[in-house]
Amino acid sequence: MKLGLFGYGVIGRGVYTLVENLTKRYDVEMVKVFDLPIKKEILGDKLVTDIYDIINDEDIKIVVEVLGGHDLPYEVISGCLKKGKSVITANKEVVSMHLEEFINLAHQNNCSFCFEASAGGGIPVIRPLIDNIKVNDVNDIFGILNGTTNYILTKMDDEGLSFEDALALAKKNGFAEANPTADLEGLDIVRKINILSSLAYRGNICNDDIYHYGITGVTKQILDDIKSRGYVLKFVAASHRDGNDVTIRVEPTMVPNGHPLSAVKNEFNAVLFTGSTNDTLEFYGKGAGSIPTATAIVSDLVSILENRAYIGYRNENKLVVNQKTNVCAKYYVIDKEDKVSIRMDMSDEELLASKFYARIL
Amino acid sequence: MKLGLFGYGVIGRGVYTLVENLTKRYDVEMVKVFDLPIKKEILGDKLVTDIYDIINDEDIKIVVEVLGGHDLPYEVISGCLKKGKSVITANKEVVSMHLEEFINLAHQNNCSFCFEASAGGGIPVIRPLIDNIKVNDVNDIFGILNGTTNYILTKMDDEGLSFEDALALAKKNGFAEANPTADLEGLDIVRKINILSSLAYRGNICNDDIYHYGITGVTKQILDDIKSRGYVLKFVAASHRDGNDVTIRVEPTMVPNGHPLSAVKNEFNAVLFTGSTNDTLEFYGKGAGSIPTATAIVSDLVSILENRAYIGYRNENKLVVNQKTNVCAKYYVIDKEDKVSIRMDMSDEELLASKFYARIL
Repeated sequence: MKLGLFGYGVIGRGVYTLVENLTKRYDVEMVKVFDLPIKKEILGDKLVTDIYDIINDEDIKIVVEVLGGHDLPYEVISGCLKKGKSVITANKEVVSMHLEEFINLAHQNNCSFCFEASAGGGIPVIRPLIDNIKVNDVNDIFGILNGTTNYILTKMDDEGLSFEDALALAKKNGFAEANPTADLEGLDIVRKINILSSLAYRGNICNDDIYHYGITGVTKQILDDIKSRGYVLKFVAASHRDGNDVTIRVEPTMVPNGHPLSAVKNEFNAVLFTGSTNDTLEFYGKGAGSIPTATAIVSDLVSILENRAYIGYRNENKLVVNQKTNVCAKYYVIDKEDKVSIRMDMSDEELLASKFYARIL
Repeated sequence: MKLGLFGYGVIGRGVYTLVENLTKRYDVEMVKVFDLPIKKEILGDKLVTDIYDIINDEDIKIVVEVLGGHDLPYEVISGCLKKGKSVITANKEVVSMHLEEFINLAHQNNCSFCFEASAGGGIPVIRPLIDNIKVNDVNDIFGILNGTTNYILTKMDDEGLSFEDALALAKKNGFAEANPTADLEGLDIVRKINILSSLAYRGNICNDDIYHYGITGVTKQILDDIKSRGYVLKFVAASHRDGNDVTIRVEPTMVPNGHPLSAVKNEFNAVLFTGSTNDTLEFYGKGAGSIPTATAIVSDLVSILENRAYIGYRNENKLVVNQKTNVCAKYYVIDKEDKVSIRMDMSDEELLASKFYARIL
């Protein structure tokens, strides 16, 4: 089975190595790799610099897309699926925006679309979720879905670092990007909770409809106060559905000590599902990193090679994303005069007018 | 697709109900149910009282075995696989003893053998493990795998109950069997860690080779002392491999606060895998109960209906189970004079000569 790889960056190199290890057990070969001309020295004749050298190659039946960004990956994924090539991607931006289209293209062209690595990184969560929801109606999802921000909050809380120092350390250790805005403001989490919610609730959700409030206002003093109340602050995505009404919010959240999410530290991630038959399930592991992410990608590859690839939803439900505040939620609010109060029935306007707030789980 | 069910007890009834819900999406029908004649009133014409009424029925392609015990389930599972019927079971005793034989029978007869519910109950762990080990070499497994004992330890620790009162409460709430010896001594955990280890390390392990030490010696005083040291006591299965050498021990274990296993309470279970490419993965959920277990069984059923059933190992490795104490482990030991000490390099004889001991994680 001939494979093509789009992107030879940090994750692409991990995939390349793991696929080489796989050749002991499976008849697979990575025949072409798309990247910039500068990679010629490493990749030799395998390098192609035109995506259509892979898309139009009829010998290649499976491709892995790890380019990052939106436009080029979208062209690659839809182009390959239309040619009947199975596609594996880790691209949360593209998957969160076009999941239904890609699943339908895969169905129409009798190939697979796999995206285990797009939410939860190295944690096997997409496949267990797809299996589980055949039997279990999932109604709530709680996730710590971003390694960068969880690393920062852990270092501030456990080692007393300031926000700035924790962010600098995250950058130094490769857990934060040069421009960490998408992580700090929760946009990265929005995309991942969108993918998980769309799958679990079998419908489409627009990233723009998901409320998010970032962690840049967190200080050491706030964390200490929260700790003294028996909680730990985490950056949590909370998704709930009631019939076809969906509420999704990404907010700093006070998690009580002893709660399964309270023990998720550093670059680890976790996702917790609650449903009709299964009560609570939690999946925990490294949410990012070259080798964990590549492992999830290559697990998808093996499932395709063994004809066991998962089958996603076909937009069965017309979901309506609720834009109102979750009025049942309790909030920890610091007002402009630094006065702390515990409040319910807060509107988003009131919450955003505060100096800092956190949801209380 | 016509199905047969062996056993209409607590789990069997859950399976029956979930399969009825499934008929909206899949062409499935439960046509025969094996149980005692006394179930005639509930099951009517579907009841059969001879296992061969199902085994020899060529119209039935998939069976679910939830009888419990060893001899009859073994006859049912091997008989059905030999007839080319796919088998789904929750029976940890039979699976832990005959896994290789069943997997080979399934391969030979071109059908599936699925056992997601046999370890970890309602937690999807077998399938993610089988997928994951295609890429990741798992070398360590830690599990809280028994709902009864975890419930007892939680109630003693959080609510100050005595061992006897906690056990009585577990029985009253349906979390402990009338004769709880297999749970309290760790035999139930032995079977489950055997199944997980056999899969992860791709080889056979004999239940009798797995060391286990029960929790009947735990007192409120011991739990308080352990708590004051910053730990919580859990009944943990620890499995490690080094090449083909395997060490598996089931022991009361002191888990440090903040460790992912420390937040696993009441009837919940969790399994933690550490491997070559994935660092640590944890799966958490309800380890027992009618509907969670039935959910795992019916997830297996759906994977067979969608032609995505998992493929287990074929005994690739000759594993040798190490019978020696893990000499690197640290132990909390209470001697016959009630003196507490922290020890290393203890032999099993010395450990068993103590009044109580716990491994320190």
